[in-house]
Amino acid sequence: MKVGTEHYRSIWYDDAKQVVKIIDQRWLPHEFRVVDLKTRDEFAAAIRDMWVRGAPLIGATAAFAVSEEMKRDPSDKSLNETWEVLDATRPTAINLRWALDEMRETLREVPLKERAEAAHKRALEISDEDVECNRQIGLHGLEIIKKIAATKKPGESVNILTHCNAGWLATVDWGTATSPMYHAVEAGVPVHIWVDETRPRNQGAQLTSWEMDSHGVPHHLIVDNAGGHLMQNGDVDIVIVGTDRTSAHGDVCNKIGTYLKALAAYDNNVPFYVALPSPTIDWTINDGVLEIPIEERHGDEVTKVWGKLDDGSIGQVQISPDGTPGGNPAFDVTPARLVTGLITERGVCEASAEGLAALFPERVLN
Amino acid sequence: MKVGTEHYRSIWYDDAKQVVKIIDQRWLPHEFRVVDLKTRDEFAAAIRDMWVRGAPLIGATAAFAVSEEMKRDPSDKSLNETWEVLDATRPTAINLRWALDEMRETLREVPLKERAEAAHKRALEISDEDVECNRQIGLHGLEIIKKIAATKKPGESVNILTHCNAGWLATVDWGTATSPMYHAVEAGVPVHIWVDETRPRNQGAQLTSWEMDSHGVPHHLIVDNAGGHLMQNGDVDIVIVGTDRTSAHGDVCNKIGTYLKALAAYDNNVPFYVALPSPTIDWTINDGVLEIPIEERHGDEVTKVWGKLDDGSIGQVQISPDGTPGGNPAFDVTPARLVTGLITERGVCEASAEGLAALFPERVLN
Repeated sequence: MKVGTEHYRSIWYDDAKQVVKIIDQRWLPHEFRVVDLKTRDEFAAAIRDMWVRGAPLIGATAAFAVSEEMKRDPSDKSLNETWEVLDATRPTAINLRWALDEMRETLREVPLKERAEAAHKRALEISDEDVECNRQIGLHGLEIIKKIAATKKPGESVNILTHCNAGWLATVDWGTATSPMYHAVEAGVPVHIWVDETRPRNQGAQLTSWEMDSHGVPHHLIVDNAGGHLMQNGDVDIVIVGTDRTSAHGDVCNKIGTYLKALAAYDNNVPFYVALPSPTIDWTINDGVLEIPIEERHGDEVTKVWGKLDDGSIGQVQISPDGTPGGNPAFDVTPARLVTGLITERGVCEASAEGLAALFPERVLN
Repeated sequence: MKVGTEHYRSIWYDDAKQVVKIIDQRWLPHEFRVVDLKTRDEFAAAIRDMWVRGAPLIGATAAFAVSEEMKRDPSDKSLNETWEVLDATRPTAINLRWALDEMRETLREVPLKERAEAAHKRALEISDEDVECNRQIGLHGLEIIKKIAATKKPGESVNILTHCNAGWLATVDWGTATSPMYHAVEAGVPVHIWVDETRPRNQGAQLTSWEMDSHGVPHHLIVDNAGGHLMQNGDVDIVIVGTDRTSAHGDVCNKIGTYLKALAAYDNNVPFYVALPSPTIDWTINDGVLEIPIEERHGDEVTKVWGKLDDGSIGQVQISPDGTPGGNPAFDVTPARLVTGLITERGVCEASAEGLAALFPERVLN
């Protein structure tokens, strides 16, 4: 999407300079840095140290890592080593493994001297497929926003609340939850975004706010506590969030705090939608609350907050006493009963086994 | 309550040194500073600049301001001027006006040469009355905690979640929501406190965590997003919060985010109690959601976070892009239907017009 007047993806191949470029997201929102990724070690560091994050973007980055390596050494040994090195960077990222497998399967049967070109082609395709998937999500979500806009007075914006960053920075472009918002902007439907800061890691404050500011979308940053009050007072028309994992029955595992917003939406008859590319559906899991394990992260993420100091440098503050430990569950599960609908690349469905099965009949497990 | 091994109130009269002392709360949790308040200007600054905060503590501080001023000049002019100066410090603090009126009414008929002594006596009484009120709240709340403890296995703690700081630092001692917790500790009932950080001003992280750490109560600081997940997983036995204002029908206006915790408690059958001294009941208001105006505070409180820097100094970080404005409603209203009960100094009642009227029949307006 746009950064000021220019359009960017989060990762792209610079044809003129023959190099892969990414936005180094560690510095956002305070600095916009574009860096080249050349060596396998650079790609590995970019994923491991979170210069890039978000499952789809991690997958695309891994695919480019393989394609760049194939230019240097297209041997099977090189291909396997690259798979190993990249796979070890973020062990739980499902798109990472998928992209690496996809690249290796594609290249295995390709003669050595054609591998670089085939790899480059497939890496570009993987990026484009992500963009197209998110574009479809956005078009389906746009229809929902348009229906709400039709109930508004002229000039009134549709107020959309979102949590965390399911934005273009987490994908190659468009984002998932943000895609309907960007499509609304392109379609001339006035929207205003309530951006949950999303403690403890503040992805909303740092990334979603930055996306909205950079693309010129009207928005306010709010604390995670505020959404319930805003819904109670009619200031939220729709909630759209992303998901890390959705159960076959429509339960949604997403960043901690999503469940609280779903409860408030339900209590105030505010539609609550989840935008998801179908690969995030885990068809092996039915009851998300009981079956999805929740990562417990380090307490320091709770007791310390990162940002820009008064002198412009980057630093962190400790907000609590030295003797206070932090408790830090990183995700929660929103039961399907609280979800108005799932926005997928194939269309919108009810958050239920039946709803998902109707859109993805070939994926349902017996 | 305790700070290490010593017992403190948030404000007290030092008989040996003949001076009023307070904890300067601006430096908590990073520094524990006790300061003397002597002149009327010092008292006014202490209230206005939030060296002390919390309605009951503000009231007690104002009462001491009058009593100290009476030692210097017990004239009617001095009494009226002191009323005016103090009243202007925090215009919306209801206990401030109440304490000033109470002191002036008490002293008006007292001969000038007896005023200093009478004022001193009444100021001490106002402090003691607050302590006794909170002690009663604690004893009533303790009974609820004991019942939960009786269902636990030996050695298991009762897990209590609280939001913001309705602690002893907001009162003269015991606190309101914290009083049952401290009473449980004194009674040997094992408790563990989940402390919501309470963005944007982080009263949980800064003050409640400090109270728990200082008194030696087992606790974890959590982000405001985490409570729903913890309740869903059986890790919260009871929620106890304070309130700034309670409607005659039992709707509870408290720090922003309280409503979200009440929704989660309701959804998971976790008892949700509100501890309140009866002066916080607004008998003129029935429907809290419709009738209680919510203060909108400056957006900088959302975009910036205050704390201790790595070098030990105090500073703040900006968490969002320069171009992102903050939205900052400071309170929300939890409808009575989500509240299990109100813990008052006269006992526990249902959050309803009938419940409150049964405990406070003389206060009900026709």
